Amino acid sequence: MEDGHPKMDTGARSWMQFPFLSDAAQRLMLDIADTIDREIGSLLLPSKTPSDVVRFKNSKGSAEGSVVLRSGKDRGQVRFVLGSWLHCKLTAGTLDIATLIIMLGSDIDAPHFMFEFIQNDFNSLVLLLDLLPRKDVVLEPEYLKRFYEDTGLEKLRQGLEKIPQSKVYVSTSLYVRSVVSPTALLYKFKGLQQSTEGVKEEGKEALEVLVKEIVHPTAKGVVFKWVDAFQNKGRRVEGDERKRLEERDAQIRDKGVEIDLSSNMPKLFGHEITNRVIQAYRNGV
Amino acid sequence: MEDGHPKMDTGARSWMQFPFLSDAAQRLMLDIADTIDREIGSLLLPSKTPSDVVRFKNSKGSAEGSVVLRSGKDRGQVRFVLGSWLHCKLTAGTLDIATLIIMLGSDIDAPHFMFEFIQNDFNSLVLLLDLLPRKDVVLEPEYLKRFYEDTGLEKLRQGLEKIPQSKVYVSTSLYVRSVVSPTALLYKFKGLQQSTEGVKEEGKEALEVLVKEIVHPTAKGVVFKWVDAFQNKGRRVEGDERKRLEERDAQIRDKGVEIDLSSNMPKLFGHEITNRVIQAYRNGV
Repeated sequence: MEDGHPKMDTGARSWMQFPFLSDAAQRLMLDIADTIDREIGSLLLPSKTPSDVVRFKNSKGSAEGSVVLRSGKDRGQVRFVLGSWLHCKLTAGTLDIATLIIMLGSDIDAPHFMFEFIQNDFNSLVLLLDLLPRKDVVLEPEYLKRFYEDTGLEKLRQGLEKIPQSKVYVSTSLYVRSVVSPTALLYKFKGLQQSTEGVKEEGKEALEVLVKEIVHPTAKGVVFKWVDAFQNKGRRVEGDERKRLEERDAQIRDKGVEIDLSSNMPKLFGHEITNRVIQAYRNGV
Repeated sequence: MEDGHPKMDTGARSWMQFPFLSDAAQRLMLDIADTIDREIGSLLLPSKTPSDVVRFKNSKGSAEGSVVLRSGKDRGQVRFVLGSWLHCKLTAGTLDIATLIIMLGSDIDAPHFMFEFIQNDFNSLVLLLDLLPRKDVVLEPEYLKRFYEDTGLEKLRQGLEKIPQSKVYVSTSLYVRSVVSPTALLYKFKGLQQSTEGVKEEGKEALEVLVKEIVHPTAKGVVFKWVDAFQNKGRRVEGDERKRLEERDAQIRDKGVEIDLSSNMPKLFGHEITNRVIQAYRNGV
């Protein structure tokens, strides 16, 4: 694992693989990917993502990644599901990013699902996990109440807030900060405060325990809140309201490309691979 | 000061007084109140707030407060400015809250200004300082860029983020979390980590130095950013856009009443005083 050999023994049959994450993080991502498949898999088409997007590498071999998209059968309900990972060796160490996103369609106003997991050399961990609001909750407090105030999401957030290793994670992107809900789980975790060579392994181990015992069950809890929101709390949207929802969703998708893909990928993979991935994302297949 | 005697030597001529705050906090609030007066005072009418709202006390004498409103001459530009404070003795200690708010009118789309300062026994301090967005910045990234990304507000926030005594403050209200901008300064400061009796005074002193040397200049910086936003970056709003802005503003005002006044004031002051204050706030005078 240390030098990045993929492991094939943890859930190899899932629609999405996360070969470079730490053991506990892999188990977490696969569990969430499997849960998504179990809960809404019947609403999705098999993935038609081109194989050179499903797996790509840069020429130096210092970075590789994967993007798998699955389109909804009825795109008014589920527009697409995206799973992706990125693994790169930087001068500062190894960076791993794993992402699972569910973008809904404009027949329904339930929140999108966003889950991102960032590991730096397995020594620190950033979690971004949220049900992304589809409406301006300041203008529409009913939306806030229906999906956030009345759903217990805040309790899950407070669970992470309380543990001493966690610190609120503030994204460098003002847009990312704006797009998330007020119950978003945005946390950075450190295994140990000290980072001297002697305790590094201990720090990694502590972080693995943390992922297994706290982050994993919390993330699972949030996924089930999302499933409940999608299956039981979403409402049909019509007319002007639908138009606004569609415009807002388009902005979220466009900004997602701009921030996640267009800004970092060209440096790591060059323009050809980047464009291929962006194209797949835009088409949602 | 310890037992709450008002001090009259720091800026007694200002339109707003904050008699119960610590020295450094008083200087800060008065400086901001004076700056507001200097920059937009010519656009405001003299306050017509009834004297029993300008100063009120509960019957037990354990809580008192003040609300001063000044209406805009042209309410399409500045709707009202509000200054308020609350001082109460609770079983857990003394609580002081000071607030300055500028609500703009619907002729212009520049952000509202919000500044709240909460002191607990002078041992901890919460700062809420923000330019409140008037539009849904997810739907309108241009608004985000004009007032937040291109204005250096983020740098001021990072200045507070960096200091070791600060911690991100997460409001218990999901609505408050939603209404603020992505560059909002929401921080809790502690004078010292330990809270044993022996170091309490030292902790208060450290907090005073922090307010004077870091919080004060930062807050002043944010006020000037707001002044610049109001004077140079706001745009005229028409038609449907204006209607939406007005609806959104009404929500912000209503929720402000609900959260700040209706929920806490009745317990402290009873319904009569509470209704009087809410009435003044709703009328904006």
